Amino acid sequence: MPELFVDLGFARVDTDRARRCGFPEVIFGANKTPEEVVAIGRVILEKEGGVLLVSRANEQQHVALLAAFPTAKWHARARCLTVELTPRPKLAGTVAVVCAGTSDQAVAEEAAVTLEVFGNQVERITDVGVAGIHRLLAVRDRLEACNVVIVVAGMEGALPSAVAGLISKPVIAVPTSVGYGASFGGVAALLGMLNSCGSGVTVVNIDNGFGAAAMASMINHL
Amino acid sequence: MPELFVDLGFARVDTDRARRCGFPEVIFGANKTPEEVVAIGRVILEKEGGVLLVSRANEQQHVALLAAFPTAKWHARARCLTVELTPRPKLAGTVAVVCAGTSDQAVAEEAAVTLEVFGNQVERITDVGVAGIHRLLAVRDRLEACNVVIVVAGMEGALPSAVAGLISKPVIAVPTSVGYGASFGGVAALLGMLNSCGSGVTVVNIDNGFGAAAMASMINHL
Amino acid sequence: MPELFVDLGFARVDTDRARRCGFPEVIFGANKTPEEVVAIGRVILEKEGGVLLVSRANEQQHVALLAAFPTAKWHARARCLTVELTPRPKLAGTVAVVCAGTSDQAVAEEAAVTLEVFGNQVERITDVGVAGIHRLLAVRDRLEACNVVIVVAGMEGALPSAVAGLISKPVIAVPTSVGYGASFGGVAALLGMLNSCGSGVTVVNIDNGFGAAAMASMINHL
Amino acid sequence: MPELFVDLGFARVDTDRARRCGFPEVIFGANKTPEEVVAIGRVILEKEGGVLLVSRANEQQHVALLAAFPTAKWHARARCLTVELTPRPKLAGTVAVVCAGTSDQAVAEEAAVTLEVFGNQVERITDVGVAGIHRLLAVRDRLEACNVVIVVAGMEGALPSAVAGLISKPVIAVPTSVGYGASFGGVAALLGMLNSCGSGVTVVNIDNGFGAAAMASMINHL
Amino acid sequence: MPELFVDLGFARVDTDRARRCGFPEVIFGANKTPEEVVAIGRVILEKEGGVLLVSRANEQQHVALLAAFPTAKWHARARCLTVELTPRPKLAGTVAVVCAGTSDQAVAEEAAVTLEVFGNQVERITDVGVAGIHRLLAVRDRLEACNVVIVVAGMEGALPSAVAGLISKPVIAVPTSVGYGASFGGVAALLGMLNSCGSGVTVVNIDNGFGAAAMASMINHL
Amino acid sequence: MPELFVDLGFARVDTDRARRCGFPEVIFGANKTPEEVVAIGRVILEKEGGVLLVSRANEQQHVALLAAFPTAKWHARARCLTVELTPRPKLAGTVAVVCAGTSDQAVAEEAAVTLEVFGNQVERITDVGVAGIHRLLAVRDRLEACNVVIVVAGMEGALPSAVAGLISKPVIAVPTSVGYGASFGGVAALLGMLNSCGSGVTVVNIDNGFGAAAMASMINHL
Amino acid sequence: MPELFVDLGFARVDTDRARRCGFPEVIFGANKTPEEVVAIGRVILEKEGGVLLVSRANEQQHVALLAAFPTAKWHARARCLTVELTPRPKLAGTVAVVCAGTSDQAVAEEAAVTLEVFGNQVERITDVGVAGIHRLLAVRDRLEACNVVIVVAGMEGALPSAVAGLISKPVIAVPTSVGYGASFGGVAALLGMLNSCGSGVTVVNIDNGFGAAAMASMINHL
Amino acid sequence: MPELFVDLGFARVDTDRARRCGFPEVIFGANKTPEEVVAIGRVILEKEGGVLLVSRANEQQHVALLAAFPTAKWHARARCLTVELTPRPKLAGTVAVVCAGTSDQAVAEEAAVTLEVFGNQVERITDVGVAGIHRLLAVRDRLEACNVVIVVAGMEGALPSAVAGLISKPVIAVPTSVGYGASFGGVAALLGMLNSCGSGVTVVNIDNGFGAAAMASMINHL
Repeated sequence: MPELFVDLGFARVDTDRARRCGFPEVIFGANKTPEEVVAIGRVILEKEGGVLLVSRANEQQHVALLAAFPTAKWHARARCLTVELTPRPKLAGTVAVVCAGTSDQAVAEEAAVTLEVFGNQVERITDVGVAGIHRLLAVRDRLEACNVVIVVAGMEGALPSAVAGLISKPVIAVPTSVGYGASFGGVAALLGMLNSCGSGVTVVNIDNGFGAAAMASMINHL
Repeated sequence: MPELFVDLGFARVDTDRARRCGFPEVIFGANKTPEEVVAIGRVILEKEGGVLLVSRANEQQHVALLAAFPTAKWHARARCLTVELTPRPKLAGTVAVVCAGTSDQAVAEEAAVTLEVFGNQVERITDVGVAGIHRLLAVRDRLEACNVVIVVAGMEGALPSAVAGLISKPVIAVPTSVGYGASFGGVAALLGMLNSCGSGVTVVNIDNGFGAAAMASMINHL
Repeated sequence: MPELFVDLGFARVDTDRARRCGFPEVIFGANKTPEEVVAIGRVILEKEGGVLLVSRANEQQHVALLAAFPTAKWHARARCLTVELTPRPKLAGTVAVVCAGTSDQAVAEEAAVTLEVFGNQVERITDVGVAGIHRLLAVRDRLEACNVVIVVAGMEGALPSAVAGLISKPVIAVPTSVGYGASFGGVAALLGMLNSCGSGVTVVNIDNGFGAAAMASMINHL
Repeated sequence: MPELFVDLGFARVDTDRARRCGFPEVIFGANKTPEEVVAIGRVILEKEGGVLLVSRANEQQHVALLAAFPTAKWHARARCLTVELTPRPKLAGTVAVVCAGTSDQAVAEEAAVTLEVFGNQVERITDVGVAGIHRLLAVRDRLEACNVVIVVAGMEGALPSAVAGLISKPVIAVPTSVGYGASFGGVAALLGMLNSCGSGVTVVNIDNGFGAAAMASMINHL
Repeated sequence: MPELFVDLGFARVDTDRARRCGFPEVIFGANKTPEEVVAIGRVILEKEGGVLLVSRANEQQHVALLAAFPTAKWHARARCLTVELTPRPKLAGTVAVVCAGTSDQAVAEEAAVTLEVFGNQVERITDVGVAGIHRLLAVRDRLEACNVVIVVAGMEGALPSAVAGLISKPVIAVPTSVGYGASFGGVAALLGMLNSCGSGVTVVNIDNGFGAAAMASMINHL
Repeated sequence: MPELFVDLGFARVDTDRARRCGFPEVIFGANKTPEEVVAIGRVILEKEGGVLLVSRANEQQHVALLAAFPTAKWHARARCLTVELTPRPKLAGTVAVVCAGTSDQAVAEEAAVTLEVFGNQVERITDVGVAGIHRLLAVRDRLEACNVVIVVAGMEGALPSAVAGLISKPVIAVPTSVGYGASFGGVAALLGMLNSCGSGVTVVNIDNGFGAAAMASMINHL
Repeated sequence: MPELFVDLGFARVDTDRARRCGFPEVIFGANKTPEEVVAIGRVILEKEGGVLLVSRANEQQHVALLAAFPTAKWHARARCLTVELTPRPKLAGTVAVVCAGTSDQAVAEEAAVTLEVFGNQVERITDVGVAGIHRLLAVRDRLEACNVVIVVAGMEGALPSAVAGLISKPVIAVPTSVGYGASFGGVAALLGMLNSCGSGVTVVNIDNGFGAAAMASMINHL
Repeated sequence: MPELFVDLGFARVDTDRARRCGFPEVIFGANKTPEEVVAIGRVILEKEGGVLLVSRANEQQHVALLAAFPTAKWHARARCLTVELTPRPKLAGTVAVVCAGTSDQAVAEEAAVTLEVFGNQVERITDVGVAGIHRLLAVRDRLEACNVVIVVAGMEGALPSAVAGLISKPVIAVPTSVGYGASFGGVAALLGMLNSCGSGVTVVNIDNGFGAAAMASMINHL
């Protein structure tokens, strides 16, 4: 029987995750010390196949991780750290990451970095809001050519409905906290996406680019 | 000095409204007895120019009003009553009333009936949701030809953004209570519209077809 | 160029949907008259491949549809109507539909019926709440054998997290309005699912069994 | 066929907006770097008629824009940047911008600056709250003389109802985040305005002076 | 020492309330059987001075109370029952009960009936919404002549601010559940009143005419 | 190894619950058919020790259960059904169930019936709201004599704080949906209890008398 | 006719307020520059009787006001500035200001300072929470001796109910933003107070000590 | 008769609490000056048995308390200060404090420190989220061996349900503000716990480790 977890005292690292779920535990960097990140990361890299992702990371964690693993890479816009001792083989299928406005790019990049570290090819498409619908129609064929489409949008979150109406591929909608006033930190976009009139749209938490990518990667690996 | 209001005891009817605001008081039928509707209606018809609109009306109010004013008309889908003793002259300009789905038609009809009784021509366009955007593109020129466009939508309320991005005319968005679950009785649509990425979109209360029409009529009369 | 839609006056039926999105328009039965359902259904059956699904349907719509199409079938628990003039070929892959409690079955059945009419095989698993976790562990292998897992749960909505932690397949979570008090009609379950600590979980609207199935079917067809 | 957009990589600038919607794209400055603002601004100025507006701007963006366009102007209270290489001709009609309290002036100025750059004359009226109704009655005739009235108010947001009851011109209500406690960052004012008992009142998002002005300018251009 | 309460098993009737608080316990009729109302009422009438008020009462409770106390009186619009075996002496001072619209009258009547049974004179003023402010200015002197003013309003709840700005007497605001859509059952009015820009405005629960009257009566008795 | 559950198709009955958790599964009656209740009940009675509780039950379920188990008992006010083939031995310790108002009694009875069927003695105390604090002080010693105190209250939910300040025993607070307007179906009481300034207060869901009793019974069995 | 207001450009100072409402306009200091406070203050002091109150003030405003009016006084805990060129005569009646915890004192002091500048005597009572009810019972007679009682409380806001149940004087409840988690910045206390089971309780906005004092002063002046 | 409280002017220290409720008043450090903490602490230590706990404390309070009581101890992670002049005897029974993720540890430590100062033994178990359910199953027996289990979790708050389904001991659930987006500062976890399908789960306020410990200690002392 494989070792199921490693108890570090402050954390129980799940070392059976890659076997059960297809990819290792990802470290949620927020509220963790650089030392904790390095210690957990070391266990994952050793036990779970040589690939590590830290989301919601910060510069201090970057410095500490780099000291421990010289190939650690800091993705500033995505606020992610990655270490790829044994990179995953790239899949043939592609995942599109579309975002509605330039302000949604941090979340879109978190999705894209996650996808890449788990072995997916990514097609990035930026700034195709519904208020200029021709910008979306211009990329319809590129979207249809992908296996899954992640759509990142703030404000009213209308883009996933429009995308879903154009293609036959699953759409994963990511509401962002971009907006002001009655956007309520992304709630307006979240509700818009949950009530989408488009078929085949599912939704993740506000700003959860990682979650969308995890789902998309699972689909792309089928 | 004109008589400013008539005190009926249970109501103070504003008889100076048409002079001040351009159209007479409209009776909000909900919670009023048929007798109250008739009494208030009689004052408005006598003092304010011969045109009456009762919104959120019911069949009993219809029967009572018909007995008092044989030309009273019941608009069932719109839940409105109208009496036009001296119909308003029709304006040259047109107001479009667009709705996203077949379930939004009651609210759209309340808007359309209001517009007509106040002297506007109405262009009705039904069932042009964003999940089949070609249905909207097909009517773009008809919309641009109007002076104002009222857009009625439930669920995620994305249609006004798409419309506003296509035309140069003011868009008045009406969220409807159509939907279920996290539509929260129209809140999702309302928030979507308030956060519209389209310019020139303003919003009225959930299901408030009358309010949208009152605004549109004022604009059309400029 | 194919005919893009048919304008019935009260509805513009999208007759290009199956080509664009992989399956025809589904009629949302709520707020539609039996006559409207039959008229729209006739267009879809003629133009879009011989398969029809009406969700949130009622008995009157059943009677009317049966008169028009003798093979129409009423799925009482799922509140769905189907007509399969030319049934879709069954896919090899299977979709699991798991529900947490016996009260969640109506929503689960809406998902299962949708999946079947679109050509998917369905594995139904009922009543595996987290308060008796051994009931879930007992079906782990059956879940892993499917391509996608739909998890339907009300109350605190904890089941998708537990399922996602056990398998490597995408999980689509459907919150239900089952519960009372601070469940707020499914909001507690919805929030629980959006905040799931499990990777690869996406969410649809409260009680939206159809939406989960549409997504799952798209994934299963990849 | 005109060029529909310019793809800058990080943004797709809509260069067909002025033709379609009557005025060019406005840059929402929040979350954009000074370099992004300059690059997008350059495209808009070149392709869309020589007028640029940046809303929610900051000092750094001001410095960068001034280096590129020496006539760039910083409107500190409104937090807006404008460049007018080819100023729009002034319309004969006037738009009033009324605000309820001295704290609402930043939002009112965003509306006023937007109106002016798009060629409207503006009548500014400050501090006419409903708790001293004589201050409002004193300006009634000035309001009636305008084509549209924008009313900016925080706290309970009662001013638009009172204004709408006095005049025959459309009223666009802008709730502000001014207030404390149960004002909930402008939600109380927003709800008050959506539920206005005055006819002809429509509403924009909290603090959205720009949106109100865009609508008012469209109306004023009819 | 006086008897502090009477234990009826299903209720502990506070028989020291009139001494401590100035008026006896009032029975909240909702969810009580007619028998419970009569039993509690009998204790209050015997121990607390011969005056009884049942709020939120219904017809069955009326019938039962009338059988026990032939002078029981049913106030249909106010949904209140009263028994006055020993009527309270009338105070010289008057309390005004103002309501914004005809639909707010049920709540206003609950306030008025409560005031009268506790010995206050009441001035009723109906239908003076802010959208026709001249209707309010016309009654300014009548309001100033009272000791306290209760203002009852639904929808946006703007009336208390306008009243408070005109007079020097305390204003008690009662939001009502009148409205639709984003009135959220009176929440919009409640928030409007809590954020009133008028000084000297306090607020009670939605539809709580009784609570406003209890406070006003205490003030009037000072 | 004991049988862990019985699969009835529509339900998987946990038959290991009494061993693991101290008492058998309780049937939540809402949304279940009488046949389902009887079938599940039969399994529980046979496998889990001869005691059955159905909460949120109705009359039809009563009739069906009585036909199957002639000693089934209907607790109308508590909306509970019980069958005690092998009654649990009564513990020496007592649990108090206190309620603030007469309208809270249904929830209090659900707690009391649950406690009794699981072998606890119950002290019922009714109608001791904080507005007549002497009614609470009068029962202080009876409360201190119990092992646990369940406090049931609607409206502002202040009673648990007052109780907790008087005694040294754990207090379990049950908010009820009693109230109107801004009580929001029990939310006000729930928030009041969660924010209690009293130490040793924990809270269950709105109207969840059963949950409070389950916890209290566990404590009483320690 | 008296001068009704003075237009300073950035503000219209109501100079008829003392005549209409009994006390002059109070400056809400938040969001105002020191220069604006001095300019508005000068008008009020000259036209409205020689007494000035600035609420939500800061140190810079203090310095500027002191330069203009050497007797200006800074009340640090209350965050208020006062100038009393012609102090109001003290009334015989007293207003009590009670607070539940030591953290509520800033709000209580805002109320107390307001009361004093408007000529009321104040009885301050601190830290009498319901979790130690004997602390409240100990001051019952001091409260009954006052004309009005202001009760300031955060967390669950239960104190006003307990106070109202003990005395015959009006109670004005002020919820504070003290608390954490599900206190939601004072919402829990606000809801608790609106749903108070005590009679004669009215409520003001969260942290609105001034508003409570304005009402109490009006009552005390009757 | 014992002295019931000590009036320090800014605070009324309850000196009868240990007698009534089993443990002395705990100082809530937030918003208190170091001097206030020391003064209140001195009273409690002298009158209530020689044990002091300050929750939500800060470093300045630590320095001040250490100067007054050299044995004061600062628990940094728990943000608590303790002084144990006369430590309580340790009970035989143990309380488990389980937390779902490493980010929940601050709240868990507040609970653990509180438990220890009141004389309980504590079993700390960290990082046993439901997404790796084997980590929980591995500690089942350690949990069952305790008298009470406190479960601390953020995000979706599913852990208490899973724990309650495994053991026969009372579970006290503490939602934490850990999460982002639609976790709404702990609301998602709070709702999840209130709607737990597990029996015997009660809940405290978000981040209220102290409250859970106070309840658990009371139970452990029975």
